[in-house]
Amino acid sequence: MQYPAPIKTLIAKLAKLPGIGNRSAERIALHLLQADARLSNELAEAIRNTRAQIRYCTRCGNYSVAELCDLCNDPARDKSLICVIERANDILALEKSEGFKGVYHALGGKISPLNGIGPEQLRIAALIQRIKTEQPREIVLALSADVDGDATALYLVNEFKPLGVRVTRIAHGLTVGSTLEQSDEVTLARALEGRKEL
Amino acid sequence: MQYPAPIKTLIAKLAKLPGIGNRSAERIALHLLQADARLSNELAEAIRNTRAQIRYCTRCGNYSVAELCDLCNDPARDKSLICVIERANDILALEKSEGFKGVYHALGGKISPLNGIGPEQLRIAALIQRIKTEQPREIVLALSADVDGDATALYLVNEFKPLGVRVTRIAHGLTVGSTLEQSDEVTLARALEGRKEL
Repeated sequence: MQYPAPIKTLIAKLAKLPGIGNRSAERIALHLLQADARLSNELAEAIRNTRAQIRYCTRCGNYSVAELCDLCNDPARDKSLICVIERANDILALEKSEGFKGVYHALGGKISPLNGIGPEQLRIAALIQRIKTEQPREIVLALSADVDGDATALYLVNEFKPLGVRVTRIAHGLTVGSTLEQSDEVTLARALEGRKEL
Repeated sequence: MQYPAPIKTLIAKLAKLPGIGNRSAERIALHLLQADARLSNELAEAIRNTRAQIRYCTRCGNYSVAELCDLCNDPARDKSLICVIERANDILALEKSEGFKGVYHALGGKISPLNGIGPEQLRIAALIQRIKTEQPREIVLALSADVDGDATALYLVNEFKPLGVRVTRIAHGLTVGSTLEQSDEVTLARALEGRKEL
């Protein structure tokens, strides 16, 4: 038997979400059919609202409902410490780690010649402008630990030189909880490089 | 950091879906934010459309867009064989097994005194009417293998007696692929009871 068309469409759309296979999509679709109609309505509305109401903070590029995001508006955050990340999602990951009390600047991606992404497509000019205006004491680069991330870091370091700002990059090394055996050789080389005196 | 309100609402709604934990809900919400806006819109629309367009087949209780479902309208299905199930979802499960070529009748649940569900809340009167009108040669009970399913089966057998129709119930036994060790004692007792000559 085929599902009626609206159910088939719903399953196909759900199966496009990350981590949702066909079987889960089917289960969710049938659940939405059987559960209180309010659940469907509220879910559909929440999906629409999120896209309609969320925009990017004009200063740092974080998700926000207002022009400036909660972090940029928070007087408790250290504005002299700017962490450069690729995307707004990275802010959420760093905030969960609770290891950073400064502010952020999302580039919107990383320099990637293979994908046709150069510095001019990223929010780099805005970052340089910010450094000139806000005069932070340190820029922390928290970019991907891959070739493009490295290239972007290198490019930024050169751009920042004339500005006289201190630039650091977050450490690369062993994942907490992992063993040497599980780590690849590049990670191990980076971990050795970044060794600290105890 | 807290998520902006619309994202928080979306995550909460997504986390109510079956098989979706908080972590997956977060991942899906952030994906919807980053992906093409079309994906969000189409998903929201598919959810709304499904609830708006899907109704229950007036004859068998299956999901349908028209008054009668595809199965009831299918001339290839054996109308003299009616399989009684609890819910429309059970039809989909049985159809996937490809073991049944008759038609269905969904009761809308099972008799469950503890949950305050008696025969009059189920589509039993409609089933009796159907048997009188359609005069099927066999009624197959495919109800849950639990106390309420057993009670419902017993009740139906008594109701069907004056109608002179043959009533069968699907077998209980070992799950295909399972070992004796994995099976509980009640299943094993039922499997023994239902043994067949080879």
